[in-house]
Amino acid sequence: MLIRHGMNTCFARLDIANNRVSTLAAVLRRQQFLIRSLGGTPSQDCREKMNAVEADSLSIIRKITPKLDLSRHKGQAGKIAVIGGCREYTGAPYFAAISALKIGADLSHVFCTKDAAPIIKSYSPELIVHPILEESYSVRDEDKIPTANKILAEVNKWMERFDCLVIGPGLGRDRFLLDCVSQIIRSARYFNIPLVIDGDGLFLVTNTLELVSGYPLAVLTPNVNEYKRLVQKVLNCEVNNQESSAELRSLVKGIGGITVLRKGKSDLICDGTEVCSVSTFGSPRRCGGQGDILSGSVAVFITWARQCEDMGTNPMNPTVLGCVAGSALLRKAASAAFENKRRSTLTTDIIEYLGNSLEDISPSV
Amino acid sequence: MLIRHGMNTCFARLDIANNRVSTLAAVLRRQQFLIRSLGGTPSQDCREKMNAVEADSLSIIRKITPKLDLSRHKGQAGKIAVIGGCREYTGAPYFAAISALKIGADLSHVFCTKDAAPIIKSYSPELIVHPILEESYSVRDEDKIPTANKILAEVNKWMERFDCLVIGPGLGRDRFLLDCVSQIIRSARYFNIPLVIDGDGLFLVTNTLELVSGYPLAVLTPNVNEYKRLVQKVLNCEVNNQESSAELRSLVKGIGGITVLRKGKSDLICDGTEVCSVSTFGSPRRCGGQGDILSGSVAVFITWARQCEDMGTNPMNPTVLGCVAGSALLRKAASAAFENKRRSTLTTDIIEYLGNSLEDISPSV
Repeated sequence: MLIRHGMNTCFARLDIANNRVSTLAAVLRRQQFLIRSLGGTPSQDCREKMNAVEADSLSIIRKITPKLDLSRHKGQAGKIAVIGGCREYTGAPYFAAISALKIGADLSHVFCTKDAAPIIKSYSPELIVHPILEESYSVRDEDKIPTANKILAEVNKWMERFDCLVIGPGLGRDRFLLDCVSQIIRSARYFNIPLVIDGDGLFLVTNTLELVSGYPLAVLTPNVNEYKRLVQKVLNCEVNNQESSAELRSLVKGIGGITVLRKGKSDLICDGTEVCSVSTFGSPRRCGGQGDILSGSVAVFITWARQCEDMGTNPMNPTVLGCVAGSALLRKAASAAFENKRRSTLTTDIIEYLGNSLEDISPSV
Repeated sequence: MLIRHGMNTCFARLDIANNRVSTLAAVLRRQQFLIRSLGGTPSQDCREKMNAVEADSLSIIRKITPKLDLSRHKGQAGKIAVIGGCREYTGAPYFAAISALKIGADLSHVFCTKDAAPIIKSYSPELIVHPILEESYSVRDEDKIPTANKILAEVNKWMERFDCLVIGPGLGRDRFLLDCVSQIIRSARYFNIPLVIDGDGLFLVTNTLELVSGYPLAVLTPNVNEYKRLVQKVLNCEVNNQESSAELRSLVKGIGGITVLRKGKSDLICDGTEVCSVSTFGSPRRCGGQGDILSGSVAVFITWARQCEDMGTNPMNPTVLGCVAGSALLRKAASAAFENKRRSTLTTDIIEYLGNSLEDISPSV
């Protein structure tokens, strides 16, 4: 019944999506103005970030983070789902999903393989973990099509409830699993759900750009190596760090109509027009898993930024604002964790500082 | 593709290895000089350690531990893998792998049996755990060769990414599993990856000395009983505690071209030339698992010491320096944990003190 309901309403959603695309240019111009008017200044680290405007990330976080009051009900602060977690990787989807909750989302789901589910569940009773994905080794060839259909139907039962999907943390690279995730991405687009794509999700998308091309609610969050592969695929050249902003703009235009958050010493964010940066001090510790915190954080902030937009107070590109906010919050939390734990700082430690870091910037009541 | 790439580059690596072996004698002389010049003094506990120079371990730790700064990227502080963990033992590989992270490595992997993986994963989402090893009970005789080949191929896909392997914590003594690990050791030598061999890895190596003989990047870390078996096998006699240093030197020469860290009241370290000792006060608590902390710690410090060498600042034997540093840090952390927890000190408690203990010696920024 849920699926049928989804199908009936999706056309209305698609109309809304089309309208949104057509008004996007105007929205982007207003958003760039907002970034500047919120205090954006040219950054110092000039060559690398030439033409990038340093975002006033704290003002943006304050702008989009909702105040809490007793009239709110469960779900309003965000319902996030992470698609990831396989036999090999279980930490990454946990980090993304628990980060979303620690920042303030109300519900956080994980859709992972049957092998991964009990372990992810064991990390925390706070998460809702769906053991529904399959890897090739557990599916006979003749069962692949019905199994894929069953997986997609199962995810679709939930799809409309989610405010944002994070695709990729700990997904692995199994062919059958990635084929199913391609279907999930197509379905998410159909239902007009924002997508944050990281990790092995980027591997999938880099090889099949049409999955995200032209979808303004998609954000890719590549690290150094993932960015390199994207540039090679889309621009057919090597990364040029002397022209980071121009290159990032070309990359986004090459893919078409999405947002890219390029992680690095400064995070650079672009939706095809201007490039903004987040350079606030973070942590020199480079333990694995910090990218997963970022993907979960960006998902929550995009949700909140879209709620702002829905309220009509500031029509701006919520995807860019979500990226700025997620990047800045991770840096602040990582800095606080490093202050305390120094060289032994792990991802779990940083997650523990997400709440206080956000409270410092934007008190909850 | 990764495997092929590995095969293509391994010859270059072997050339580098050969050059390294040929310059080892000079390097060792300089390293002995460093140990002395850093303040090494003859120890007091004279009979047992006659001819052993007490290493100035704190200066060595300061020398090899990298400062952290924002220009560093994920992986530079070390990528460690532990080969161990079976149906019976899951704590040991976890202790070794998490210790590596807590000291400051960026990524820590565990390769274990399928039974052990979910449990090791559940201890911490920070570890990347590969459920790929098999014990005899789960493999039919006719499947053993293809299964072993598959396991080796899977490990080889990752091999070149690692800075050091720890072989043995919680490995067990299953014949088929140990045969696979023998292949992994041979492959690691082929790719010129440093090896720290402890626990059941020592059982394997003691019975098949050619696995490590002549490999200067191997270190064995035997406790009292493991050392006894090594001496019986290599020197064909009982341990002589009156001539510890001479005996250790003979043992190392008997095996050929490796380093041995003999754990005891004082830890004795020898790579075939002089013997150095680490005797700083640790803890009188002898709970199981401390050897696993040591193996993970030594792996990280060897990685860092080799990076120092790569930078050309101090050409010295990084294996010995890694052993000295690992031994000294464990002692300091164990002492701090015992101060707090006394008789109830457990391995987990000691691990929690690794970060602060290292920070005391060598501040991270």
